[in-house]
Amino acid sequence: MNNQKKFAVVLSGCGVYDGSEIHEAVMTLYAIALNGCSYQTFAPNIEQHDVIDHTTGKPIAQSRNVLVESARISRGHIKPLSEFNAELFDALVFPGGFGVAKNLSSWALQNANCTVNTEVAKAIKDMHGMHKPIGALCISPVLMAKVLGNVTITFGKDAATAKATETLGAKHQLTGSGQVVVDERNMVFSTPCYMLDASIVDIADGAKAIISEMLKWIR
Amino acid sequence: MNNQKKFAVVLSGCGVYDGSEIHEAVMTLYAIALNGCSYQTFAPNIEQHDVIDHTTGKPIAQSRNVLVESARISRGHIKPLSEFNAELFDALVFPGGFGVAKNLSSWALQNANCTVNTEVAKAIKDMHGMHKPIGALCISPVLMAKVLGNVTITFGKDAATAKATETLGAKHQLTGSGQVVVDERNMVFSTPCYMLDASIVDIADGAKAIISEMLKWIR
Repeated sequence: MNNQKKFAVVLSGCGVYDGSEIHEAVMTLYAIALNGCSYQTFAPNIEQHDVIDHTTGKPIAQSRNVLVESARISRGHIKPLSEFNAELFDALVFPGGFGVAKNLSSWALQNANCTVNTEVAKAIKDMHGMHKPIGALCISPVLMAKVLGNVTITFGKDAATAKATETLGAKHQLTGSGQVVVDERNMVFSTPCYMLDASIVDIADGAKAIISEMLKWIR
Repeated sequence: MNNQKKFAVVLSGCGVYDGSEIHEAVMTLYAIALNGCSYQTFAPNIEQHDVIDHTTGKPIAQSRNVLVESARISRGHIKPLSEFNAELFDALVFPGGFGVAKNLSSWALQNANCTVNTEVAKAIKDMHGMHKPIGALCISPVLMAKVLGNVTITFGKDAATAKATETLGAKHQLTGSGQVVVDERNMVFSTPCYMLDASIVDIADGAKAIISEMLKWIR
């Protein structure tokens, strides 16, 4: 019997300003593989909210698909999030990036009043219902607050985001780079990554820390 | 005096099939930072040869700019390759990906008869003239063969690419994952990465190995 633990990783595009933060996404995959586990990436098959020129921060008049762009990070190996089945995975992870707040949800525009993509919400609820670990890096804990409500999470030292999620019933814990907040009751794990002024080494440390912590709780 | 070693990293877009291979690029930046060194990314300010849908491998009818897309990998911190000055850096590195063979050169279309982007060729020649280390991951050693000719390089076990570069005067050495070929005379370093059937852990190992080796030779 194969005891290799299986992680599903949900991407939201390819690039910090309109998709998944690339360092966080790559270091998440690296940390999973380093621990001898397997990963499958997923993304919703939807248009991106916008396309940002990462040299200027300004929008480009172009449309791009979240699934298609996310595939860049996983060298083409990706599935539409509609095919995600919580029974087939031991854990679920969301790297950060503005794609979480613009493509997986409308957090960037509406904060606590946002909507969450229905496939994303279903994936979170299904894993939560099975008491399987869910990891959230950087801004991704906003999804946990909106979908699950009463969760304990971290955004590093970002008071504004913490306050907005508290209106949804979440509790916030301050963290530094590489620290992981464990919500044992909900099996929700979070780490701040680029919510802090961090280096790529900090991101690797954070990804390794959260994956190691999640592995302790996989039954 | 600041003794921190400075690496220039040349990107070629964002995604293995039309730009920089993202794992190789991110792990290169990570390995540089892990060693306490700094990096500055560069890319030519030119249109991509093509845009590939990474879920299908087929072209998309869109145009994208190499510098603009490369900026996704470095969170917006990037300079046009025209601004590269070899005097300001201790070492130069090229991650792989089809962008090397389609944007930095025309290797993918013409093999040994290819042209190399003039800014790329100048960066290589300038560093070579100062006897400063140049690192080439994956397919990037084709640039060294075309620009410098008589170099010793590796493409892992890829006999076809090896043979094509040998017509340019290069010597090929077989390697496995994480191994680095050192051409001491030319200060050219190469490692196979995804030229082999490799995992993301192999890519991290290869990037760490080549950066560590290059650091031994920085004067």
